[in-house]
Amino acid sequence: MADKQPDFIPKRPMHHRRNFTGLTSKEADMERSKWPKETIDLWNRLYKKDAADIETIQKSIVHHVTTTLARAAYNMDNFTAYQAVALSARDRLIAQWNETQGQLSKADPKRVYYLSLEFLLGRSMDNALLNLGLKDVYAKGIGQLGFRMEDVVESESDAALGNGNLGRLAACYMDSLATLEYPAWGYGLRYNYGIFQQRIIEGYQAEFPDYWLNFDNPWELPRLDISIPIYFAGHVHSFQDEYGVTRHKWVPGQSVQAIAYDVPIPGYDTENCNNIRLWRSKPTRVFDLTSFNEGNYEKSVEDATQAEKITSVLYPNDNTMAGKELRLKQQYFWTAASLHDIVRRFKKSQRDWSDFPEQVAIQLNDTHPTLAIVELQRILVDEEQLNWDDAWEIVTRTFAFTNHTVLPEAMEKWSVPMFEYLLPRHLQIVFDINLFFLQKVEKRFPNDRELLKRMSIIEEAQPQQIRMAHLAVVGSHKVNGVAALHSNLIRDTIFKDFVEYYGSDKFVNVTNGITSRRWLNQANHKLSELITETLGSDAWIKDLDLLKGLNKKVDDKVFQKKWMAIKRANKVRLAELIKERCGIEVSPDALFDVQVKRIHEYKRQFMNILAVIHRYRTIKSLTPAQKANVQPRVVIFGGKAAPGYYVAKLVIKLINSVANVVNQDPAVGDLLKVVFIPDYNVSLAEVIVPASDISQHISTAGTEASGTSNMKFVLNGGLILGTMDGANIEILEEIGEDNIFIFGCLAHEVEDLRYAQRYRGVPMDPALQGVLAAIEKGTFEDPKIFQPLISTLTIGKDYYLISADFASYLRANQAVDAAYKDQDEWVKKSIRCTANMGKFSSDRSVKEYADNIWHIKPFKVVDNQQID
Amino acid sequence: MADKQPDFIPKRPMHHRRNFTGLTSKEADMERSKWPKETIDLWNRLYKKDAADIETIQKSIVHHVTTTLARAAYNMDNFTAYQAVALSARDRLIAQWNETQGQLSKADPKRVYYLSLEFLLGRSMDNALLNLGLKDVYAKGIGQLGFRMEDVVESESDAALGNGNLGRLAACYMDSLATLEYPAWGYGLRYNYGIFQQRIIEGYQAEFPDYWLNFDNPWELPRLDISIPIYFAGHVHSFQDEYGVTRHKWVPGQSVQAIAYDVPIPGYDTENCNNIRLWRSKPTRVFDLTSFNEGNYEKSVEDATQAEKITSVLYPNDNTMAGKELRLKQQYFWTAASLHDIVRRFKKSQRDWSDFPEQVAIQLNDTHPTLAIVELQRILVDEEQLNWDDAWEIVTRTFAFTNHTVLPEAMEKWSVPMFEYLLPRHLQIVFDINLFFLQKVEKRFPNDRELLKRMSIIEEAQPQQIRMAHLAVVGSHKVNGVAALHSNLIRDTIFKDFVEYYGSDKFVNVTNGITSRRWLNQANHKLSELITETLGSDAWIKDLDLLKGLNKKVDDKVFQKKWMAIKRANKVRLAELIKERCGIEVSPDALFDVQVKRIHEYKRQFMNILAVIHRYRTIKSLTPAQKANVQPRVVIFGGKAAPGYYVAKLVIKLINSVANVVNQDPAVGDLLKVVFIPDYNVSLAEVIVPASDISQHISTAGTEASGTSNMKFVLNGGLILGTMDGANIEILEEIGEDNIFIFGCLAHEVEDLRYAQRYRGVPMDPALQGVLAAIEKGTFEDPKIFQPLISTLTIGKDYYLISADFASYLRANQAVDAAYKDQDEWVKKSIRCTANMGKFSSDRSVKEYADNIWHIKPFKVVDNQQID
Ligand SMILES: Cc1ncc(COP(=O)(O)O)c(C=O)c1O
Ligand SMILES: Cc1ncc(COP(=O)(O)O)c(C=O)c1O
Repeated sequence: MADKQPDFIPKRPMHHRRNFTGLTSKEADMERSKWPKETIDLWNRLYKKDAADIETIQKSIVHHVTTTLARAAYNMDNFTAYQAVALSARDRLIAQWNETQGQLSKADPKRVYYLSLEFLLGRSMDNALLNLGLKDVYAKGIGQLGFRMEDVVESESDAALGNGNLGRLAACYMDSLATLEYPAWGYGLRYNYGIFQQRIIEGYQAEFPDYWLNFDNPWELPRLDISIPIYFAGHVHSFQDEYGVTRHKWVPGQSVQAIAYDVPIPGYDTENCNNIRLWRSKPTRVFDLTSFNEGNYEKSVEDATQAEKITSVLYPNDNTMAGKELRLKQQYFWTAASLHDIVRRFKKSQRDWSDFPEQVAIQLNDTHPTLAIVELQRILVDEEQLNWDDAWEIVTRTFAFTNHTVLPEAMEKWSVPMFEYLLPRHLQIVFDINLFFLQKVEKRFPNDRELLKRMSIIEEAQPQQIRMAHLAVVGSHKVNGVAALHSNLIRDTIFKDFVEYYGSDKFVNVTNGITSRRWLNQANHKLSELITETLGSDAWIKDLDLLKGLNKKVDDKVFQKKWMAIKRANKVRLAELIKERCGIEVSPDALFDVQVKRIHEYKRQFMNILAVIHRYRTIKSLTPAQKANVQPRVVIFGGKAAPGYYVAKLVIKLINSVANVVNQDPAVGDLLKVVFIPDYNVSLAEVIVPASDISQHISTAGTEASGTSNMKFVLNGGLILGTMDGANIEILEEIGEDNIFIFGCLAHEVEDLRYAQRYRGVPMDPALQGVLAAIEKGTFEDPKIFQPLISTLTIGKDYYLISADFASYLRANQAVDAAYKDQDEWVKKSIRCTANMGKFSSDRSVKEYADNIWHIKPFKVVDNQQID
Repeated sequence: MADKQPDFIPKRPMHHRRNFTGLTSKEADMERSKWPKETIDLWNRLYKKDAADIETIQKSIVHHVTTTLARAAYNMDNFTAYQAVALSARDRLIAQWNETQGQLSKADPKRVYYLSLEFLLGRSMDNALLNLGLKDVYAKGIGQLGFRMEDVVESESDAALGNGNLGRLAACYMDSLATLEYPAWGYGLRYNYGIFQQRIIEGYQAEFPDYWLNFDNPWELPRLDISIPIYFAGHVHSFQDEYGVTRHKWVPGQSVQAIAYDVPIPGYDTENCNNIRLWRSKPTRVFDLTSFNEGNYEKSVEDATQAEKITSVLYPNDNTMAGKELRLKQQYFWTAASLHDIVRRFKKSQRDWSDFPEQVAIQLNDTHPTLAIVELQRILVDEEQLNWDDAWEIVTRTFAFTNHTVLPEAMEKWSVPMFEYLLPRHLQIVFDINLFFLQKVEKRFPNDRELLKRMSIIEEAQPQQIRMAHLAVVGSHKVNGVAALHSNLIRDTIFKDFVEYYGSDKFVNVTNGITSRRWLNQANHKLSELITETLGSDAWIKDLDLLKGLNKKVDDKVFQKKWMAIKRANKVRLAELIKERCGIEVSPDALFDVQVKRIHEYKRQFMNILAVIHRYRTIKSLTPAQKANVQPRVVIFGGKAAPGYYVAKLVIKLINSVANVVNQDPAVGDLLKVVFIPDYNVSLAEVIVPASDISQHISTAGTEASGTSNMKFVLNGGLILGTMDGANIEILEEIGEDNIFIFGCLAHEVEDLRYAQRYRGVPMDPALQGVLAAIEKGTFEDPKIFQPLISTLTIGKDYYLISADFASYLRANQAVDAAYKDQDEWVKKSIRCTANMGKFSSDRSVKEYADNIWHIKPFKVVDNQQID
């Protein structure tokens, strides 16, 4: 080969230019023209994508072991093998990423940007290999090298950059966007510490920092040269420009750098590889005259450390708003960096500003990124010198907003003084947006001061507050809820006035979805194989409606048997995990009843454990003969409570105290086991979900916007015990009411019930009274511990309606027991569940967003083995 | 190939074990025995070191560009090319590293550990390629891909983990140790910020954090799994063990983790690749019950950030002691982690403890690592339960100590209360060491209380102080100075009592040296080629005494011409750099007079600039005719002052003020230019050193222990203007007094001169008086600025004897001018300089250490293409 080497070195040194971004066609042409033909030929000859045969794969694994990882064959464990496989897969992902982004840079279609403060990705390797279509060959390759793929996969730790639902939804959507070949980027933060690690100590939750980056993360691509200055504080300088127009310039007081880390998101069965760009804060290198004048070298090093704090830690709160300065800094840092990047990309093509909404759609995942609206307006008006109205037109046509909750405690508000200190110019713009908006409202509905007050972006409190949800609605062209019920609710409650003003077209519904790749194909590989075998093709993985084909098999005994065998195998796997993590033996023959999600009063884990106590007391009261008729049940809990959420943490303690007593009570035996699995996260979910018989989604009606874990359980053939809340309702519609256990009050009844409890002294449910009496008697540890919890029902007037729902909840539980006894019927229900879940694919959700909100089209990347 | 693939996967999953370290022969045998033969065969077939042909090299570069770096051919700059070449070379380095360390683990010879708080490595790429023997093929390879190697090399930034001399010496020694195939590891700290970046603003030094890690460092190998717990504070628990012996256990109050980063150090022209292990501090993951009980998640994340502070920043002080708590933490963190690693390695071979000094030599580079003595004693007595005397015997046979200075302000002392708080158990041990030592002294020299007080490790001050130099002497078997004069001085002054007690054998000299690879072959590639051509071989690179062969060429006109042409080319290159960095035009025909080193009063840059002023005033007083006879001169300064060293920083300001006036004075023109090159560092030195005609090493006699830049300049054919200090004296002996310009008082005269100045009112040198008058007149900016500087000469009684030496310094400068006029003679001097510098190779120094102090032998690594 060396002989064929052209023996030349370009004479004239070329002037190499590096664009921190992809090249447009024009730019690429220009660069190419500078290169001698021989050089281009040489590059083309050397640039070969790695082949997909086992030998190439093994070589790359061995190469990474002995170079990148500096290990030796006899001196590596499963984690080393994981690292080597990951690095090898990463090389391929990057090549795809490069191709995709390069081709997108040239074609420059409209893109969507998904701004989410959380991306709960979980593990990446299994998904990457699946989507690359290399899962089997890698498994065989590493197998021959002496390692089992399962062990290797297990060595990866989760990327846990999210609290729960909202972050996991973002991750599912990214998977679907890539699979459907939409040009889409996510933008988020690269937290040094993701959601805390939960350990249970003496029954209590203890939180530990999540050191997920302690070992290099092969699934990210540091873009250390993409470094964007982000400013804070300072003051606003107002002046007349050359045309006599008053202009404003922000003169900031602090600066930090945003550094990009790219996370490749390969689509399933496609060459397309999308991107999530996560920002990390770093000290700025801009000359700081102040600390120079102070001659304070130590201080300037100290400042550097401070700058890194912004992206140090994910706020561990789910559905609650923490009005902390650092949180606001995070939000601005992230939106400003992202917008800077989006605007830069747009400007590469040198189009007119009015084309911006034709090229760019930005989705706001909850109100967290709402500052992006203000920042874009600022860029257009202050920096690009557009006039206010043109700018605002561009802004509102660009953004769309997803609302995720109606819980009052989750509504983001920022105190005006704090906001003013950190973002003085943005505050002016918010006030102007509000002024112009309210002027229009007032024109349409004159003299309704209460209306103006209700709709204002500024809440007249002490101090004043900025209502981020209002700002998001005003600055977006579409607002959506995440399930049918929820979308109706927001139209009727928090955004009622806005619907009247804007009309109802602006307020739409996109029911959440989940990716079938991770939640069925990966998490339940055996079931997935059975489905493919049954349907005769794996096309369902990309078209989940094809699962309907399983309906024909509902009565097929052979099929039923295979189905139940897989469920049982999944339950055995979970039982092993429970044994290992909690030291509790549970029987896979019992009914597995699961409630795993963030611990929150509205989700009513409290009600669940209270009913467990009721069950325990009932069993204790039975004769041996009666006991023989009891359906054995394992009640499995999991989930994290926000570290500052005292009541939620007490629920965990209560669950563990009850477990302690129940599990050791010889009078109960296998009839009832209670388990709290610590540190619930995505990879645990992948084991738990396929193993459930029943899962509980029992939020007070009207409080859970959608839920997505309900979809995951049902997709895996688990039945739901739930309230008429969130997506439960639509699931019911799809799978039929015979295959779901519903109880409790309806959303529209909630207000009346609360009113009655508060002002009419409705008596507590008698069964519930009995349960509370048992706690107060000290059946489960010192009752003083649980007093604050019980007070939420008494003094707190039972805001979440546990008492009101308790009787029907107990009845529903009995119905579950009865139904489970009839295994012949149960398996049919289970099959029908899976068969009718097509709607809940995130592919469907994403397509709805693309067609109705973003107006973007798929872009197919072609496989190109040339350097351009 | 895929056909030949053995189609098997080992049935029984193997239990993979990963040793964080190399395997001993026994361990390797055990691991191998677990593996099926097919697996071993497959590994052996796949494990191939990268070939060294151009095609393989280019492929690896292109692969790294398109995968690891995620760039495209048309979209990369010189820095990308640097990264790709570095990553490609890194793969090879790691393979060598692995081979070396693997073979050493098996053979287990005696090793030396070089403990240095500073390793001033500078750039690595050029050196790595040179030592790998791949410099030319890489240059050609990257050239064909469209990049010039010079530009690529220039894209690397310095690893500047050191202040000056001491750190650079450590780097040179590491190069020689690897080249001479000694089994040696360096241990140091991985500072997040190395020595500050110096910028000059309005003539003043301004310090900026050195963000050297902002782009990934390809020259290190993160060993993220090597994580050693390091403890601080707490208390000591004393108890009786089972045999009734009183034992002590340290119960620490804080802990952090030390994470290893390995820096491969390839030897020149050998397979051996040594290691520098740098420690980084990270938060510990040990369960912290306190912060759990406080329920304070935010605090525990905050604590994590604090832990990283220990290795955040290099203390920017050269030859001064800063008694800061964080500095003591750094020292203990580093020595404890290193000793833990050394002890672990020793224990792998399961030898008797008494063998420790046969297996381990530890060199203390200055007093900074002296705590290692105490830590080893603690490990042996408290953890390994040896008795005190056996332990102490092992300790003292293990350690050797290099003293680097006799300056009082540089003597390390730690306040006892601070030490006690951080290291309570270590304090007890220090007191015990001192007690047992002084008891022996008292036995030998009874009743000499003054002697005991002088020799005590504890200084009886308020508060008490620990004298680290005394501890180092007492705990080592050899103590060496770093040049003949210096070694004599320490025997006669600071360690006089110790010489009397221990005898003089313990106190030896090892004159410092420099590595010819970097300082001649790389820095002055043209000269190096001429030398190889002239000597007929490049054997001199590994045997610097062969340069003597150049003496035969001193009178060879053709050779002289080539010699001078190279010098001129080097001066042109420096002139370009000066133009670029300082905006000053200097003529390469002028005499280049260089003083580059840390700015310190004892180094007397102040005297230099005062003489420059004198020269300026003289020129101004000349007639045009007289001016025609003046030798044009460019006086070049460079160097950093400690940020808190006020007087040194004023010297920089004075130099720049003088430069400002002189360079713009039309009456002077090219006769005199003054230049201060900002941010002096290793890579700048590589450009400056080969371009000097004269370099100044003019410390007050007896203050500079050795100096090594003097050696670098002379090796490159630059003459010295210097005092009889440090290594200047030995250089004079080697090259002959005709080839060096010496002036000033001698070391033994210093005390008398100071005494006279202080108590006898010696008048100031008249020329110096004239110079000071000119400053005070305001010739160079507001004279008030410089008053504190002038006060050091008047009120400060001129401690560094500038006045006493001034007349002879001016005469020596005249002698330089006169000699330079005679270019025919000058070139001969220049050649003689280079020809006679063989002694100053660090290879020679290292061999002396190995033979006389460490008693270690070379170990040749063999090229082995098998996995074991
Ligand atoms: C090859 C390539 N293409 C495209 C992109 C994306 O460029 P932009 O951020 O301008 O869309 C990048 C960014 O790093 C890139 O390296
Ligand atoms: C292959 C190999 N050999 C040797 C070593 C060094 O081992 P030790 O630190 O025990 O000397 C290492 C350490 O990482 C290694 O990976």
